[in-house]
Amino acid sequence: MTTVKLTIAYEGTDFCGFQRQAQGERTVQAELEKALQRLTGEVPKLIAAGRTDAGVHAKGQVVSFTTAARIPVERWPAALNANLPPDLIVWQAEAVPATFHARYSAKTKTYQYIVSRRRWPDPFLRRFSYHYPHPLDVAKLRTAAAALVGEHDFKGFAAAGSAVATTVRRLDRVVVEEEAEELFFTLRGNGFLYKMVRNIVGTLLLIGSGKAEPALVEEILAHGDRRAAGPTAPPHGLTLLSVEY
Amino acid sequence: MTTVKLTIAYEGTDFCGFQRQAQGERTVQAELEKALQRLTGEVPKLIAAGRTDAGVHAKGQVVSFTTAARIPVERWPAALNANLPPDLIVWQAEAVPATFHARYSAKTKTYQYIVSRRRWPDPFLRRFSYHYPHPLDVAKLRTAAAALVGEHDFKGFAAAGSAVATTVRRLDRVVVEEEAEELFFTLRGNGFLYKMVRNIVGTLLLIGSGKAEPALVEEILAHGDRRAAGPTAPPHGLTLLSVEY
Repeated sequence: MTTVKLTIAYEGTDFCGFQRQAQGERTVQAELEKALQRLTGEVPKLIAAGRTDAGVHAKGQVVSFTTAARIPVERWPAALNANLPPDLIVWQAEAVPATFHARYSAKTKTYQYIVSRRRWPDPFLRRFSYHYPHPLDVAKLRTAAAALVGEHDFKGFAAAGSAVATTVRRLDRVVVEEEAEELFFTLRGNGFLYKMVRNIVGTLLLIGSGKAEPALVEEILAHGDRRAAGPTAPPHGLTLLSVEY
Repeated sequence: MTTVKLTIAYEGTDFCGFQRQAQGERTVQAELEKALQRLTGEVPKLIAAGRTDAGVHAKGQVVSFTTAARIPVERWPAALNANLPPDLIVWQAEAVPATFHARYSAKTKTYQYIVSRRRWPDPFLRRFSYHYPHPLDVAKLRTAAAALVGEHDFKGFAAAGSAVATTVRRLDRVVVEEEAEELFFTLRGNGFLYKMVRNIVGTLLLIGSGKAEPALVEEILAHGDRRAAGPTAPPHGLTLLSVEY
């Protein structure tokens, strides 16, 4: 048996998220498993570093599985890519120890959220960014973003309905960069709660637009009340950039 | 009567080119004219700076038309965009003298061609770049590109079937920049023959891949024989960046 680690990318637009669903929806997992089955005859149990939601993209998602197939590891990308659609690609395959687990072995994950501030939506960015043509005080938004760095209880930034042992997470990096008329939010942390990045971005936009003060972030971290946070930013602005092991 | 200059952008993927076609295909001109008719009741004669081919994109295409509609010029973008699909957008509208002609008044046009050299096609670039995962000598390719600058007879780089008075054109700028694993070809000139940019890129790739020497460019400029040039690079790598007046 070999444990294989795949680094993959996908454009989330036409996927119903990563995870296989009961109704046979088009998901990343379903497409990958179909390709693996065609190659090996097996349906391996696929583990993803982060199960991205419908519409969310990935440039460096990591999945792992164990297989009896005797395909040399350097042959996996070509073999799989020949069986995958153009919106899903395998960048790299590595043989890893059997103890490797794409999700539990991950030290940190890095997400990027793109907000496009152009007056009119750019046809080239429409699939990958949230069009937000409203005035923003970027300095204020950055002050608020800085307060997120460190270990905190992010309960107030998590969507309801996910059962997790603890809502404490550590964010190592929260930066907001401007390039042309786009804002790039980059968040790296040791774990992310359900819809946490999108809720953080929604809250930062609320603050940047002047509808709340930067102190709101610290308040939400203190009291953990989701209702005080901003609306969840839409999925298509979000990309899982990389997973660090 | 008002003459209006529109600066527009479109993702060419799902358009059968700019120009209206007899069979009612989905073209940029047809979509724009439909929106204009809905707004004004007129079907104005639309003139484009460059009639891009099927699959070719534009970030700063310019079109002009004359209308009896009394819509204030600053209102045109919002009014049109409300009636346009998401892959076609109006950035800007200006009132211009009646003598303005989007095509004949243009001094230069700037095109960009993107070649992606990644081993596997990037799902995010697949619509906007030509995937070319072969070894390239970029220095050689740049030497060849430099020879294109200036006034030359570009007959050997033009596709057959276009009736033009002269095949002499002037290129002011031909640069090849590397960023990550992509090559960005930028060409600015006072006019471009049919498929000229794509034939130039195809020829430069032939040279970069070692199948021809940089001197080939000067030879083709001298003898004008299309058969000596490289294959036409595919349309989806090409974008009309801007038109200079």
